[in-house]
Amino acid sequence: MSADNQQERLLDPWYVTGWFDGEGCFSVSVHPHPGSKYGWLIDPVVQTYQHKDSFIILNRIKKFFSCGSIRPKGENSNVLTFSVESRRSIKEKIIPHFIQYPLQSRKAEDFLLFRKIVEAMERKEHHDIDMFVHLVNLAFCMNPHGKNRKYRLNDVIKDLKESSETTRQTRRT
Amino acid sequence: MSADNQQERLLDPWYVTGWFDGEGCFSVSVHPHPGSKYGWLIDPVVQTYQHKDSFIILNRIKKFFSCGSIRPKGENSNVLTFSVESRRSIKEKIIPHFIQYPLQSRKAEDFLLFRKIVEAMERKEHHDIDMFVHLVNLAFCMNPHGKNRKYRLNDVIKDLKESSETTRQTRRT
Repeated sequence: MSADNQQERLLDPWYVTGWFDGEGCFSVSVHPHPGSKYGWLIDPVVQTYQHKDSFIILNRIKKFFSCGSIRPKGENSNVLTFSVESRRSIKEKIIPHFIQYPLQSRKAEDFLLFRKIVEAMERKEHHDIDMFVHLVNLAFCMNPHGKNRKYRLNDVIKDLKESSETTRQTRRT
Repeated sequence: MSADNQQERLLDPWYVTGWFDGEGCFSVSVHPHPGSKYGWLIDPVVQTYQHKDSFIILNRIKKFFSCGSIRPKGENSNVLTFSVESRRSIKEKIIPHFIQYPLQSRKAEDFLLFRKIVEAMERKEHHDIDMFVHLVNLAFCMNPHGKNRKYRLNDVIKDLKESSETTRQTRRT
């Protein structure tokens, strides 16, 4: 098989699971968003990084899932990120794959929480403040050895409670 | 399937290739070794790292290959390394796996060089100074985006030439 054909061939599904177990990341970002109901957003995202020389393999992963995008990690960065941010793609393409070909490392625990959060959001449970707080708590349980988060859990929860109190009071008046 | 059974089951071969494509490393260390023929050693090694919480997956990779060892990366380190250093294990277990289930990323180029070096050493070609220098050159072509090497290629080659000249002169006298 020529190198070109090799690049066209769809990756083996277990290969993709092995890749993500080693090098992928399932995370849920919690960040301020002034226009939203409680002032914060919960954003599930699936990512994997590679040096820009390895664009081809990221592109094959993108083709495998038929979703996601490939972008430089930052301005002037030599690193590319393949990421899936669309909740619909995560629900329809990412989650079913990792149910059928499950992660084998400790990352499977992150995926379980990730899936729980995405599925709750699909049921619109995050429209309720108590569930929103619960999902934020779950998000903060993920990737215990990852980079430190920008916001502290206590500060987010405190802000959410104040914000929901304001919403309640506004409704009453 | 219970979690225990899951851990006992042999990993899918494509999973292992995907893992190593993302998170594995094929490298050939070149380091001084005073007692050896030319004063330097060429040491092929296959490695993958994980946080110590992920001992189980490293152990399953070890079982998959039926070789290698798992050790802390350094004293007091939270990171574990699975590594295969035995040339026999590399020849009999590692190389045949990655021939049958080939790496799909740019890392396949590193593997090609790695394999070339190991196979040349199996044929004892490194006992000849010119081939030794050639293999050192190949080793330095690997992992272009990896950590910087401790020794510079030019210094190694210069030292090897001086050392082989001394050996020749000693034989003549």
